[in-house]
Amino acid sequence: MNNSFHTIIIGAGSGGLTVAVGLAKLGKPVAVIEALHVGGDCTNVGCVPSKTLIHQAEERGATDPSGVMAEVRRKRDALRAKETHEFGAVKNLRLIFGRARLLNPTQVALTLPEGGERILTAANIVLATGARPRTITIAGLPSERMLTNESVFELPAIPRHLAIIGGGVIGVELAFAFRKLGSQVSMIDMAPRLLTRHLPEAAHAVADSLCAKGVALHFGAGVHAYDAASQTLRIERAGQITALEGVDYVLVAVGRERNVAGLGLEAAGVRFSPRTGIATDSYGRTNVPGVYAIGDVTATSAFTHSANAQGRRVVQRIAFPWLPARAPEPFYPSATFSDPEVATAGMSQEQIAQRYHPELVKRIQVDLVTQTDRGYTDDLAQGAIIVDAMRLTGRILSVTIVGPRASEMITLFTLAIQEGISLYKLYRVVYPYPTFSSGIQKVADAFLRTTLTGLRDELTTYLRYRLARPMAPTALGLRADRTFARQVTDR
Amino acid sequence: MNNSFHTIIIGAGSGGLTVAVGLAKLGKPVAVIEALHVGGDCTNVGCVPSKTLIHQAEERGATDPSGVMAEVRRKRDALRAKETHEFGAVKNLRLIFGRARLLNPTQVALTLPEGGERILTAANIVLATGARPRTITIAGLPSERMLTNESVFELPAIPRHLAIIGGGVIGVELAFAFRKLGSQVSMIDMAPRLLTRHLPEAAHAVADSLCAKGVALHFGAGVHAYDAASQTLRIERAGQITALEGVDYVLVAVGRERNVAGLGLEAAGVRFSPRTGIATDSYGRTNVPGVYAIGDVTATSAFTHSANAQGRRVVQRIAFPWLPARAPEPFYPSATFSDPEVATAGMSQEQIAQRYHPELVKRIQVDLVTQTDRGYTDDLAQGAIIVDAMRLTGRILSVTIVGPRASEMITLFTLAIQEGISLYKLYRVVYPYPTFSSGIQKVADAFLRTTLTGLRDELTTYLRYRLARPMAPTALGLRADRTFARQVTDR
Repeated sequence: MNNSFHTIIIGAGSGGLTVAVGLAKLGKPVAVIEALHVGGDCTNVGCVPSKTLIHQAEERGATDPSGVMAEVRRKRDALRAKETHEFGAVKNLRLIFGRARLLNPTQVALTLPEGGERILTAANIVLATGARPRTITIAGLPSERMLTNESVFELPAIPRHLAIIGGGVIGVELAFAFRKLGSQVSMIDMAPRLLTRHLPEAAHAVADSLCAKGVALHFGAGVHAYDAASQTLRIERAGQITALEGVDYVLVAVGRERNVAGLGLEAAGVRFSPRTGIATDSYGRTNVPGVYAIGDVTATSAFTHSANAQGRRVVQRIAFPWLPARAPEPFYPSATFSDPEVATAGMSQEQIAQRYHPELVKRIQVDLVTQTDRGYTDDLAQGAIIVDAMRLTGRILSVTIVGPRASEMITLFTLAIQEGISLYKLYRVVYPYPTFSSGIQKVADAFLRTTLTGLRDELTTYLRYRLARPMAPTALGLRADRTFARQVTDR
Repeated sequence: MNNSFHTIIIGAGSGGLTVAVGLAKLGKPVAVIEALHVGGDCTNVGCVPSKTLIHQAEERGATDPSGVMAEVRRKRDALRAKETHEFGAVKNLRLIFGRARLLNPTQVALTLPEGGERILTAANIVLATGARPRTITIAGLPSERMLTNESVFELPAIPRHLAIIGGGVIGVELAFAFRKLGSQVSMIDMAPRLLTRHLPEAAHAVADSLCAKGVALHFGAGVHAYDAASQTLRIERAGQITALEGVDYVLVAVGRERNVAGLGLEAAGVRFSPRTGIATDSYGRTNVPGVYAIGDVTATSAFTHSANAQGRRVVQRIAFPWLPARAPEPFYPSATFSDPEVATAGMSQEQIAQRYHPELVKRIQVDLVTQTDRGYTDDLAQGAIIVDAMRLTGRILSVTIVGPRASEMITLFTLAIQEGISLYKLYRVVYPYPTFSSGIQKVADAFLRTTLTGLRDELTTYLRYRLARPMAPTALGLRADRTFARQVTDR
């Protein structure tokens, strides 16, 4: 058996498989080493089971919650089996189950599940080991009562009362789904609001919707202890203890930890930080030539689609090294499948603040409920398009959409930002009536109206601040590490 | 009272009001003459009540059909009252109820509802009188049993068995809604399929969905007669008579007729044809200087959003006549709110055939059910993205999307076509996972793969046919009039 490859990929999640299939189709012999399941978090404990759960909960509601859970597992298992079969059959691609450890920048020690170790060699190694849920200790809580996104989909029946620790994307999506299935749901977070990575307007819309559906929200609160006999979870806020009764399960969704333990990063000399993961440039290159990293184990990705995009860039680097490598990594869009959905494109508020003086940034907010006819005909409860654009030029910096189709609508803005399409050009687009997208027209209308009616002031302000530096990031209380910690927590 | 205005607009529908408000806000004194209701078809008998009906039917199903019908009217009346109030209060805008007749290119005779006539004068006149449903005679059918989109929303209760004549957009949307509310629904059309303006793939997906929901489809069939005593509608297909029993209402949706009767077009010398309406250029200018026409009364618009877009162009022409007027009228997107939705952007198949040799056009079709993970998690029944692009260059010519969020997804392509963004650039976009929009990535992938793997052939074919003329339109059995007649029928 040949133990020498063009490229070894460690981790068969979305990012790793993107690299593996991409190189294999270009005729490069690759090995993919996977410790657990093909498909990674996305197929097994992330997007696929969670979106199936959300869809099933919407379709069936509380009529058959156990049937919903069984269907979620059935669809997950079927997809996993299909992917395992398909990727195992790709020409030039060898899928190997086992644990991998770097020995040096070109050699990997592979520990097989049945025992035994082999040494594999390759000119390129791609680290795509992902991340796993961070856990916390709750006094008195038996381990079988604690859930994470890795175990929640194994529940044979839904909880009677689910306490969710953490108001990030995972916690919020599962809160909507289990509430719809009939569970009582309480959400607890130390932060003063949920979805702290998103604009307050988006977070408040989602919080209002959770409340309207009967989810109890406890912000600025921490977990005190659990009493198994009485099934009581005690939480603490400003020294006050509140008892949540009848809590049979506690879902912990307080962030993610990168999978670097036992990976041999030191042996290969790959630079990493426990807080920000493996350091890479915009093409996934680590500090060691020939060693790449992509996906959740790096600093910049927290999504399946960003891991895939990074994988494509690594394929380009490895297969076509003579191509110029100057394109910056894009700002990845995000989508939270809450009700309403929240989707974003472009820079974060922190990134805008680091680059531009506040006077250069004009915010336009359109309410989809009152400013679109579709919001009227559909009795929309919440919805908004919020755009931060460069004053005068209309260059789009950041977009947040809240609403029932936000995850599909955001792609127009992702394209606009990529191609440098300003609000002046979005003004010229004809939007089908009656859609929520006609709110985009209102955004462009508002930008043009406020710009053209005050053109002299707009021009003066733009010229005055165009070359001005923004306030120093430290003045805003921001540090790269903290920004990233928040990003990971909110994933 | 002053009877002289900068511009007189005849018809207070979407298009007319767009012109009126646009000019009024620029300080021009305008008069809007409306014979019936502010808001035109859209607010009163079109988009607004039909989308409210569709939404209410989805939310409430068959639990309270009479309540749904009452709610549709309540929301329509509330919006009409709000719009009437708001437009009546716009500065520089005078809203006048009555009937208008052109005396010459600058004078309009206004007949007031209470009787009496006045003469109004203006430098510019904008004709925005819209269209109304075409009616047919059905032997034996009492008039109170015949419905059109103008009367269907007045029904106090839903029909037991609704026969819909015509498989265009109006017929299809109402078939889904009334079926969901609990009516038995039969659809009859002379054509061999429904939605004849759309691609067969889209029409077949919608037909399959109608059938799955229990709607009976009778294609290639005409109406024979109605027997009121037994409530039987007899239809004829290839000489065979079929009896549809228990039909208590017949909805006629066989196309639209333009509102030009009594408008005085001859007196003003405005050119028009009974089949294609008032002839205009791409800025709404008729053959008579100072007289404009927009919306359904013209040849090119059949949608609220196209009437609005034409209105904006007319405002630009009237208010800023020194601006260059060379931009061609865009290809308007379309959206059909069936289940699944169907949305289109770009040229029609006829327009492509008239301009390009078939060898220049490459079709890419992606199945949203089997080729996107969102289709998998959501148990999608039908969905597709179909793109016709220029071979080699990837320029997007025509797009059809079938699926649950098609009307929002189409806007990305409308923008891409407007800005000349090719499939190569759509390939670079990062699409949020898991969304239906990730199917757009698959379209771009497929185009690149098939183009790059056969690059030599692609280049040869492109160069050979780039300057070749397509087959003559008449060889395809097409004439402008017929194309347009189909467009109007299918609206």
